[in-house]
Amino acid sequence: MNKGNKFGIHRVIKPVGALPQPAEKIDNTMEIYDNEILIDVDTLNIDSASFTQIKEEADGDIENIKGKMLEIVNNRGKHHNPVTGSGGMLIGRVAEIGPKLKDRDLQVGDKIATLVSLSLTPLNIERIKEVRSAVDQVDIEGQAILFESGIYAKLPEDMSETLALAVLDVAGAAAQTARLVNSGDNVLIIGAGGKSGMLCLHEAKKRAGVTGNVIALDYGYEAISRIKKLGLADEIIQADATDPTAVYKSVQEATDGNLADIVINCVNIPNTEMASILPCRDRGKIYFFSMATSFTGAALGAEGVGKDVEMIIGNGYTRGHSEISLAIMQENQKLRDIFENLYTV
Amino acid sequence: MNKGNKFGIHRVIKPVGALPQPAEKIDNTMEIYDNEILIDVDTLNIDSASFTQIKEEADGDIENIKGKMLEIVNNRGKHHNPVTGSGGMLIGRVAEIGPKLKDRDLQVGDKIATLVSLSLTPLNIERIKEVRSAVDQVDIEGQAILFESGIYAKLPEDMSETLALAVLDVAGAAAQTARLVNSGDNVLIIGAGGKSGMLCLHEAKKRAGVTGNVIALDYGYEAISRIKKLGLADEIIQADATDPTAVYKSVQEATDGNLADIVINCVNIPNTEMASILPCRDRGKIYFFSMATSFTGAALGAEGVGKDVEMIIGNGYTRGHSEISLAIMQENQKLRDIFENLYTV
Ligand SMILES: NC(=O)c1ccc[n+]([C@@H]2O[C@H](COP(=O)([O-])OP(=O)(O)OC[C@H]3O[C@@H](n4cnc5c(N)ncnc54)[C@H](OP(=O)(O)O)[C@@H]3O)[C@@H](O)[C@H]2O)c1
Ligand SMILES: NC(=O)c1ccc[n+]([C@@H]2O[C@H](COP(=O)([O-])OP(=O)(O)OC[C@H]3O[C@@H](n4cnc5c(N)ncnc54)[C@H](OP(=O)(O)O)[C@@H]3O)[C@@H](O)[C@H]2O)c1
Repeated sequence: MNKGNKFGIHRVIKPVGALPQPAEKIDNTMEIYDNEILIDVDTLNIDSASFTQIKEEADGDIENIKGKMLEIVNNRGKHHNPVTGSGGMLIGRVAEIGPKLKDRDLQVGDKIATLVSLSLTPLNIERIKEVRSAVDQVDIEGQAILFESGIYAKLPEDMSETLALAVLDVAGAAAQTARLVNSGDNVLIIGAGGKSGMLCLHEAKKRAGVTGNVIALDYGYEAISRIKKLGLADEIIQADATDPTAVYKSVQEATDGNLADIVINCVNIPNTEMASILPCRDRGKIYFFSMATSFTGAALGAEGVGKDVEMIIGNGYTRGHSEISLAIMQENQKLRDIFENLYTV
Repeated sequence: MNKGNKFGIHRVIKPVGALPQPAEKIDNTMEIYDNEILIDVDTLNIDSASFTQIKEEADGDIENIKGKMLEIVNNRGKHHNPVTGSGGMLIGRVAEIGPKLKDRDLQVGDKIATLVSLSLTPLNIERIKEVRSAVDQVDIEGQAILFESGIYAKLPEDMSETLALAVLDVAGAAAQTARLVNSGDNVLIIGAGGKSGMLCLHEAKKRAGVTGNVIALDYGYEAISRIKKLGLADEIIQADATDPTAVYKSVQEATDGNLADIVINCVNIPNTEMASILPCRDRGKIYFFSMATSFTGAALGAEGVGKDVEMIIGNGYTRGHSEISLAIMQENQKLRDIFENLYTV
């Protein structure tokens, strides 16, 4: 059996020396190296941006969608959408564990979700069984490889797979919120009625406590209704996150002019950097979980208004992120009901 | 006299509600509002990315460069390059101070450098006097406006203007380094032989101290020679920052396998996210000063290798950044000699 590199560099075909994520093409032969895990895949959860793009290119036709997906995997050895650059995650059963990983708390047959992007995961699709367009999920027959550095979570027994998938997809956000928010903080969550936003709302209120002031901002009627139903926010602001002036004014009022100690950006649209920067106090922190964040927009934007704020790039991985996020489903029944209603089929 | 908004929103023509930086067009009439400062401009220091783009489009012809620059300012009311999105900074003399800012430590006639981007500064060019291609500087006759939130530095008496400009251009990097580095840290500086890299190197060694281990990485011969001449680095690595595997291995060796506590990225090229993430230890910090950083590249890259690192967007502004950076020119004569040699005309 061949010895593999921790990060999977041994599977990169083009360009040489690159890591599997940025690589153009990787080797998806399903014979494992000594430090890999082989997975029999049940379901792919395609990243929302990627699936939307494929659906549009396929004119919504299911057979065309299947064709596009197979084409991507044939070309690249992984489901790495060349247009959006993004991947997704998968659910499957452990089929084989390389000898170097024998000490892990994992058995052949265990059901796991991979928590590294599909954009770097060697994948072989034998057959696409079903495309569930409404929730971006695709059932397949096929196999995938997890590298030694690849992270995963065993699926909990006490919730449906689709619920677990929804929670795990945005697991990094709640775990970072847990780290960033302190007792008594003014916390602003932008896009608080969305999937990651609601998890952050729960975690922020828990950490900020009774002396804290958690401000939930969202735009649409449905999102605001969800926030009200949760009963976690100390203040609710209905505003457009692309309008920094309106957001700034509302947050000034909601904090008696002190502004937010921590801003958490969970929206799914571009051009919300300034609405995150303006309402943050001097020396405050901004956590950009949104993948639509522009690096230069944030860097030049903060300089432009002379704001000394610490801006953090939303790392998808944080130690303990899956445990923290899945635990919320035990801690908060109202939140779980909303999630089951929205994300299970 | 009209009352202005702190951030200059009163000058935005298109789109309404936007801030001056992302705005398409702003009002550059040179009659000040009550909270603005009018500046007689001497020199524009065009952002390196922007100037390179203009030079290329103008085939290097000086008259064409002038034409391009005037076209940008005519269209947008500011020198905001539509291709690169970036600006630069300027030097000039204070011509008028709005009554609301009378208490500032500033007199009409003072020579200042603006520390907010030209991409948001109302500018009117009457005449372009001289284009100094080699250092991206352009002497003009014209005027500019600084908003209430706009930051600036009085030019020091004890150094040439061009030296001060060079230092102030990258002032945020050294000030952030001062905050991030602690005594005894393993610090990796990528692009340590460049303008911002050398300032970070000085500041990092000062903070990490004798028990610290400051590792300077760069690529070209000239850059490595400068690092050697400075004598600040505990270790020097000559490597290509687009090759993460090579960088990872060298840093492992240089830190006895502990990896870096803090990574500071000061390069001027894209695709260096992975070479910053891999050599950083778990729970370490990465400061991306480079404007060529990709947000998704960093976020998905760290997740892909299961690295729990804090990744910080290089805010151009940090409180005290100009004082900290200019002070380095007093503290370190070798560094000052190299800067004078490279950046003064
Ligand atoms: N960093 C990472 O590792 C990582 C991992 C996964 C996902 N993400 C990113 O995280 C982001 C959020 O994901 P998600 O699954 O939580 O998305 P989501 O469920 O669609 O939530 C987005 C929320 O933003 C709100 N919103 C949209 N436009 C708005 C506006 N103009 N003003 C105020 N609120 C607005 C939406 O409200 P409406 O319903 O009213 O439109 C919705 O509540 C995405 O950008 C995704 O790419 C990042
Ligand atoms: N965040 C902010 O507010 C802000 C403000 C100003 C500037 N910036 C950004 O900061 C960055 C650095 O600016 P600067 O003025 O310091 O640039 P610089 O003087 O050109 O320095 C860049 C350094 O990176 C090195 N480098 C280039 N390619 C490399 C490679 N493949 N491997 C290793 N090293 C490599 C260069 O070495 P060689 O000489 O050998 O090529 C040089 O020493 C730029 O991206 C700029 O946009 C950010």
